[in-house]
Amino acid sequence: MQETREQIVNALADGPISGPALADRLDISRTAVWKHVEHLREKGFDIDSGDAGYELAGVSGFGGIAIEYGLDAPFTIEYHDSIDSTNQRARELATAGESDVVVLADEQTGGRGRLDREWASPSGGVWLSFVLRPEIPVAHAPVFTLTAAVAVTRAAREAGVEAGIKWPNDVVIGDREAKLAGILTEVEGEADRVEWVVVGIGINANIDETDLPPSVNATSIQREVGPVDRRVFTQRLVEEFDELRSDVESVVDAWREHATTLGQRVRVETPGDTIEGMAVGVTFPGALAVDTGEERVTVTAGDCEHLRPV
Amino acid sequence: MQETREQIVNALADGPISGPALADRLDISRTAVWKHVEHLREKGFDIDSGDAGYELAGVSGFGGIAIEYGLDAPFTIEYHDSIDSTNQRARELATAGESDVVVLADEQTGGRGRLDREWASPSGGVWLSFVLRPEIPVAHAPVFTLTAAVAVTRAAREAGVEAGIKWPNDVVIGDREAKLAGILTEVEGEADRVEWVVVGIGINANIDETDLPPSVNATSIQREVGPVDRRVFTQRLVEEFDELRSDVESVVDAWREHATTLGQRVRVETPGDTIEGMAVGVTFPGALAVDTGEERVTVTAGDCEHLRPV
Repeated sequence: MQETREQIVNALADGPISGPALADRLDISRTAVWKHVEHLREKGFDIDSGDAGYELAGVSGFGGIAIEYGLDAPFTIEYHDSIDSTNQRARELATAGESDVVVLADEQTGGRGRLDREWASPSGGVWLSFVLRPEIPVAHAPVFTLTAAVAVTRAAREAGVEAGIKWPNDVVIGDREAKLAGILTEVEGEADRVEWVVVGIGINANIDETDLPPSVNATSIQREVGPVDRRVFTQRLVEEFDELRSDVESVVDAWREHATTLGQRVRVETPGDTIEGMAVGVTFPGALAVDTGEERVTVTAGDCEHLRPV
Repeated sequence: MQETREQIVNALADGPISGPALADRLDISRTAVWKHVEHLREKGFDIDSGDAGYELAGVSGFGGIAIEYGLDAPFTIEYHDSIDSTNQRARELATAGESDVVVLADEQTGGRGRLDREWASPSGGVWLSFVLRPEIPVAHAPVFTLTAAVAVTRAAREAGVEAGIKWPNDVVIGDREAKLAGILTEVEGEADRVEWVVVGIGINANIDETDLPPSVNATSIQREVGPVDRRVFTQRLVEEFDELRSDVESVVDAWREHATTLGQRVRVETPGDTIEGMAVGVTFPGALAVDTGEERVTVTAGDCEHLRPV
């Protein structure tokens, strides 16, 4: 079924073809052709039908097959109009042995950020989770948070938004550092070798100002530069992520390019401590180096606040 | 039930007490007292019964309540005569939300070491897994492998065996570095904060030379110094582990004391590379520093072989 649909899309993309010719070529009934074409139209494929037959005029939908079409990265897209949490679904797939899947939703009803914090995920955003099985030790898993941050930033910049990265997991915009996206990386495995990694990314894409959570300093692509084509944006994001993950050692350099945290005075709250000083560097797989004036401290995890210059 | 049994053990430990007096004190029937006493005897409690009543003469069994009795560490012991894998059971408990449990078995039928390697676990060993929920980032989880190695080494030395630690997870004996114990740490959680850690430890305790796996360079406590009291050994191991985990920053120093790897020429096989050089140090949470002659390389995970001096 999936394969037939792909064959139809490819045939339509190659130029006009009549229903009977398509039925012949795929050895299915004309009624089946018609049903597939209607299904594709519903999923966002713009299919013209003229005297010469059917022809693909474009793709505008935001769904699984629409995003897989033309995607230059080896990921399957599992799309949901609405889901509790893409990370939860991704964990289920990971536990069942799946890999290289992107769980994507238009809306999350129970979205979560780091440390179980609520994450508003209304319709219009790009809420997605990567299911990965990389051959890395558990200690390296945090590099995927950086990988995701770089991928989101690059995709956002292509969409015309001057995004930057605030350590460890926020993609922010402008001097007021309004939050455009957040990342939640989860992992299971042996110390030596992860079993799976799930990288959840939530991007406030086409979200109206009035639908942004009022309690946090948030913004959206729509608010900054107007609505984005979410299909193209998601494809670029997945492609950038795929390219970066093939060379994780290079991710830290790419991260530094877009970091807003480096060179700033910061206050980092860790589970057991508060560290204040100058953010002087980031090291693989994602720790922040802070110069407190007395010593150089390396922070693996925590909440980071950028302080005004003193 | 559990509580009543504990109250009986404590009463018996305090001196001879008659069945009727015990029944009165605990507000249970004399038949119930007799049943509890029989149950405790089955579980390894040596209970004398003379004219003055029942009295605890000692404990010699290797089971849950026998090990919990007199244990100076806040762990529940879940004992199995035979189990597929203590790590698997521990993961189930961890996923269900449990913490501070030790799953212990006399025999494992499907024991596994690092990277899914088989781990022979005949009756007579000490096969156990800690279920923990520490407040640490995932990247710090490998410190529990070091913690376990130090705890095993200390308990083995108390038992008269001159054990040492071979990076990353083997406790070995003598110049031929015969393997006495192995450790497998598993983890699940967010990059920032683990959900749970399971630390599996397999110790060839009272295992006859003929029951040791012939294909690997293995030894047992029994082979080195004769049989050990597994109850006392397990208690000391759990107590050492408990003390070390309360100050994980100190674990690396304790590890260095017993390390056989430091100062040796080593060959480390990592998933993507082979590194040869002098093992010059270990850093938190457990990486090995190797001086190749050209550079100093930090290795997070891999198989380490000690080479003969050149």
